[in-house]
Amino acid sequence: MKKPELCLLLLLSLLTFSFLSTSTASHHDQSYDLREKQEWQKGGNNPYVFGEESFEYLVRSEQGKVKVLKPFPELSPLLQGIANYRIDYLETEPLTFVVPTHLDADSIFYVVEGEGAIALLHEGSRESHILEKGDIIRVWAGSIIYLINKSKNQKLKVAKLLQPVGNPGRVQVFYSAGGDQEAESYYQSFSIELLEAALNTRRDRLHQFFASQRSEAIIKAPEEKIRAIAQHSSRSESGPWPFIRSKRPFNLLNKQPSYKNRRGQLYEADKNDYDELKDLNARVSYTNISRGSMLAPFINTRAFKIAVVVKGSGYVEIISPEEKDNWLRQSRREHKEAEPWRQPEETGRRYTRVSSLLSEGSVFVSPPGHPTAIVASKEQNLQIVCFEVRAENNELVFIAGKNNILSELQEEAKELAFGVPAKMVDEVLRGQEEEVFLAGPRERERERERETEREEGGKHEKPLMESIMEVVEGF
Amino acid sequence: MKKPELCLLLLLSLLTFSFLSTSTASHHDQSYDLREKQEWQKGGNNPYVFGEESFEYLVRSEQGKVKVLKPFPELSPLLQGIANYRIDYLETEPLTFVVPTHLDADSIFYVVEGEGAIALLHEGSRESHILEKGDIIRVWAGSIIYLINKSKNQKLKVAKLLQPVGNPGRVQVFYSAGGDQEAESYYQSFSIELLEAALNTRRDRLHQFFASQRSEAIIKAPEEKIRAIAQHSSRSESGPWPFIRSKRPFNLLNKQPSYKNRRGQLYEADKNDYDELKDLNARVSYTNISRGSMLAPFINTRAFKIAVVVKGSGYVEIISPEEKDNWLRQSRREHKEAEPWRQPEETGRRYTRVSSLLSEGSVFVSPPGHPTAIVASKEQNLQIVCFEVRAENNELVFIAGKNNILSELQEEAKELAFGVPAKMVDEVLRGQEEEVFLAGPRERERERERETEREEGGKHEKPLMESIMEVVEGF
Amino acid sequence: MKKPELCLLLLLSLLTFSFLSTSTASHHDQSYDLREKQEWQKGGNNPYVFGEESFEYLVRSEQGKVKVLKPFPELSPLLQGIANYRIDYLETEPLTFVVPTHLDADSIFYVVEGEGAIALLHEGSRESHILEKGDIIRVWAGSIIYLINKSKNQKLKVAKLLQPVGNPGRVQVFYSAGGDQEAESYYQSFSIELLEAALNTRRDRLHQFFASQRSEAIIKAPEEKIRAIAQHSSRSESGPWPFIRSKRPFNLLNKQPSYKNRRGQLYEADKNDYDELKDLNARVSYTNISRGSMLAPFINTRAFKIAVVVKGSGYVEIISPEEKDNWLRQSRREHKEAEPWRQPEETGRRYTRVSSLLSEGSVFVSPPGHPTAIVASKEQNLQIVCFEVRAENNELVFIAGKNNILSELQEEAKELAFGVPAKMVDEVLRGQEEEVFLAGPRERERERERETEREEGGKHEKPLMESIMEVVEGF
Repeated sequence: MKKPELCLLLLLSLLTFSFLSTSTASHHDQSYDLREKQEWQKGGNNPYVFGEESFEYLVRSEQGKVKVLKPFPELSPLLQGIANYRIDYLETEPLTFVVPTHLDADSIFYVVEGEGAIALLHEGSRESHILEKGDIIRVWAGSIIYLINKSKNQKLKVAKLLQPVGNPGRVQVFYSAGGDQEAESYYQSFSIELLEAALNTRRDRLHQFFASQRSEAIIKAPEEKIRAIAQHSSRSESGPWPFIRSKRPFNLLNKQPSYKNRRGQLYEADKNDYDELKDLNARVSYTNISRGSMLAPFINTRAFKIAVVVKGSGYVEIISPEEKDNWLRQSRREHKEAEPWRQPEETGRRYTRVSSLLSEGSVFVSPPGHPTAIVASKEQNLQIVCFEVRAENNELVFIAGKNNILSELQEEAKELAFGVPAKMVDEVLRGQEEEVFLAGPRERERERERETEREEGGKHEKPLMESIMEVVEGF
Repeated sequence: MKKPELCLLLLLSLLTFSFLSTSTASHHDQSYDLREKQEWQKGGNNPYVFGEESFEYLVRSEQGKVKVLKPFPELSPLLQGIANYRIDYLETEPLTFVVPTHLDADSIFYVVEGEGAIALLHEGSRESHILEKGDIIRVWAGSIIYLINKSKNQKLKVAKLLQPVGNPGRVQVFYSAGGDQEAESYYQSFSIELLEAALNTRRDRLHQFFASQRSEAIIKAPEEKIRAIAQHSSRSESGPWPFIRSKRPFNLLNKQPSYKNRRGQLYEADKNDYDELKDLNARVSYTNISRGSMLAPFINTRAFKIAVVVKGSGYVEIISPEEKDNWLRQSRREHKEAEPWRQPEETGRRYTRVSSLLSEGSVFVSPPGHPTAIVASKEQNLQIVCFEVRAENNELVFIAGKNNILSELQEEAKELAFGVPAKMVDEVLRGQEEEVFLAGPRERERERERETEREEGGKHEKPLMESIMEVVEGF
Repeated sequence: MKKPELCLLLLLSLLTFSFLSTSTASHHDQSYDLREKQEWQKGGNNPYVFGEESFEYLVRSEQGKVKVLKPFPELSPLLQGIANYRIDYLETEPLTFVVPTHLDADSIFYVVEGEGAIALLHEGSRESHILEKGDIIRVWAGSIIYLINKSKNQKLKVAKLLQPVGNPGRVQVFYSAGGDQEAESYYQSFSIELLEAALNTRRDRLHQFFASQRSEAIIKAPEEKIRAIAQHSSRSESGPWPFIRSKRPFNLLNKQPSYKNRRGQLYEADKNDYDELKDLNARVSYTNISRGSMLAPFINTRAFKIAVVVKGSGYVEIISPEEKDNWLRQSRREHKEAEPWRQPEETGRRYTRVSSLLSEGSVFVSPPGHPTAIVASKEQNLQIVCFEVRAENNELVFIAGKNNILSELQEEAKELAFGVPAKMVDEVLRGQEEEVFLAGPRERERERERETEREEGGKHEKPLMESIMEVVEGF
């Protein structure tokens, strides 16, 4: 098991290892071509899945890092609809302090991992909250905040959704304190005369003051200072601010999951759980897909689902009706051969499957109406934090599984639509006994192998996941 | 009467026969130049009126068609304000079935003609409704719908307003079922392994299943199946869904008209009539202008009026203050001569009249604040379905007729504004006894001919409508 | 005092005299270079402050003028966020009448100076209101309005915020009456046949009617007509329209100021004061900064503050984090020398100070989150009308003065952030005893001079405002 794991890590460390499934190995091409994959990756022509290369670093030091995903429309012409949202990822080392800043953007924080605290200066006073794994907190644009990682040995990881209130799609950071480099206090940019007058302090004193400032955004802090700051932070459940309840963090993982079975859990929070999400028209969810399992094919009726993989590996398939755009230039010939029931692509309507490997740090977007399925690798649970934006009246609809919406078709409509007897339609649409979290392709493959004689033998193509895993496992 | 009618049909069959009135025949140019008109049409430089050439066909078969108007900003630089609205027109033959689909757009359907039924799959269940002429129904983005035309001899015609929830101005159709060509099920785009697992069905079964699928979006259906589907559909008035009243269709024509006289009727529905219009900020109206009559010049204070001509013919005049833009290159010389009270165009502020013939299928837009008048031909009533978008707090204001808002000017203001005694202003602004629906120019022309000696004789130019009709009637 | 005043007037009459403080005279360059300043002005590369050259004139006659600020995104790439707002400034001579018009935009009027009246035609009737200094009135898109200046010797000045409802960022004026040139009635653009029918008036009568029309937008009016119009206008407090209270003007200056001390007053009105501001998501404020004083450095958390200087002079400093954009090309070398505690600009994060002289007619924008300070000249009070847009949940936060939000930092956070003992941080952040309105740099400079021996003597650079004033005063 050692070697395949290493191999997997190697592969996944690329992070951006996204590829178009349309070129997956068919039975004509048993030798999986890694080089070709890397070319796809460079081409970066996957319109919905983004890896490390799509991020920019705001901060990158020994004490931690802050990276921001490039604006969605820059990454993909198909994501104009979420032009005014940004994704940001913060990671700090144990016992560190993130200096005070404010943004010209609203944020939703989701604590992926670790133990920390956050202080917010707004409405003329300070609010401080302990942060734990699963906490959601909304930070208002213009609130001055600072954070600590209070753990002695664990990183603090926070995934954020940003919604700019200034220029569309652009976020600016304003440092209250700091000397230069990463962090420079905005105070230093006022003219010295104005600053003297505003602060009523002598110039030599100001020079001395600013000369002593640190220049990092994330700094190592003595344990006793961290402890002192943490002590003044309240835990959500029983803080000293009963009158502003709604502003405290909400813990998603303490909530009852919306769906749960042995193959996975889905936790969801909306404005009814956490009032602060209301004006942002957003929802936060956490999906944990057990190894080898999948989240059944679904659509979101109205929302864009922006997903951040926080742990594990797997892959996603998104069905896209867009193809005029230039993001897809791969030939589909092999694909055709592998799936002989397809018609030639030259005529009529056509959807394209976009699929990508996922690993920690991957971001993918499932636009409204686009059928999507997510599969965990057989090695690890796949854990995903999702921000669903434009969430009002959104409905999560499954198009496979026991709760398949299409089983609601009238009998006659089934026959007319699918052109076969209703009984056969039901056989296909209602063959699945489970719902929401299902056995994944590979898992099922194995069951199938065990259950049945391989009647078709070498005649049919090697399944996608199997082909991938062959490489990984060094077959 | 036969010949002129044929002639009219011929003309109108061009559909896109829009022209700028600034070049209409004056008495200097009695021979109406049809060729020139066709050039205008090709130039397509009318910024507010669109014909057949501005549509794209999604479906076009023996069983029916679906056409979508190109995005407004592509059609006209002056319509950026409605960039996120689209117009769609569906027409199906008797006894047909429109296969299940969902869109990444909200829709408002208006049933122009025919008898059908619609089923909507959402919130985990199915709702089915009979559709009749005048019905308005809102379909939520992501709801899976299918339709039948249940008539044995009549087409079903539906005009739709679409409001994309995904990418601005773009609408995508997702077919649940279908083989290829027009309709291809999105199921077929998932990888075969994933599909096997999701549906828990064997691969050979899936191949067989998809191989049998039809490839049309609109299909001829046996009468008994149509009848079966229709039987499970409720009529608005008394359906089995009393608890979700608001989602049923609302019949606009069963409502009391807002205005009505012998010259026309105006029916209007807003969120107070049909709750489902609320979040769309839209209003639907139906205007029937009797032959030879006109809808008095009006402005909408806030809304864009998007009008679809569903029957009859006539013309529209829209006054536009925009002229820097390049859509108008016609010389205005003739115009000047015909209307000697005009000043030379080189100086100062100037409005431009945009006028166009209208016939079934024409779409025109009256932007907020733009004075607009609509005239029915003397041959047929002109019937128009309008979607008014950004309708909140909109007011329909008439600037001619008995309810002319300008008659509210103070006496001194009248004199100061118009530079003539208030009595003369009233003579002009209050000369019209009727309101909303008035006698059209030609109608009035005739009355005038009967009433008065033609004092001005051949001295004045031939009126616009008369000139047009001369051609049509082959005088 | 005469000569310096003249000099100041001369300077300020340029209006657009905005400059980047980064190039202000240091002690290395005592001879202040006016020519260079004019180049900056021409370069027009100040992204937040706009003068006369950024306006376009709609009307400019002996009786008055109407000028509109160009669309913000055309003026600055950093103002995309307020693309759909426009600023308009109206000035009319005594005893004048502004002819009836409607716009395809909502407006908020603020009466800067003078005595007038406004009539609004909407919802089928007329409303008339007296206008006085400090009045705010909202005019709905599509409402037909006319105005009078009823004073015999005073101008009527109105600053307006416009919010287009048609095409984004574009405003169109529709004149009900008028002959040509500046004002041309839209009636004249309908075809003569249609107009005859609509108004039920004979063509010769129409020709005569339109031939008599005036062609100015603002016209001199006989005193008795002005008086007659004014008499039918109500004063806000007790008009004949008790049932539509909210539509009357609201007087901002009659309200209790939000902040007030000997150095200035701040008056603010939001939807709670004036219901009509609600759907526009806007707020109006009036700031009067006493000569020599300043408004303490602040940020708006969410709103864009669009400020119109209505009287006096001074300067503004805005701290901008944006610098990729091309608006700043000045070298910062002198600046570096003058402020030795600055680090070289080549590395890391950096803010840019944008500063500009302000005088009557200047417009500046403080975007959300951007630290900003405003200073009055020592000659005159600086009076500013502000429209704050996207105002919902906005908070005005001060980052200097007694209510400095940063004094809320925990003690340990202060030390960690600023890298010096908390005591020293407090000395700097809490050195100022006053709040909101403070002594300006020059004022404080003088106090300092009086208070202390000039220990640093010629060693330190000459302060900014002093350098400017040297030029002005002809030292």
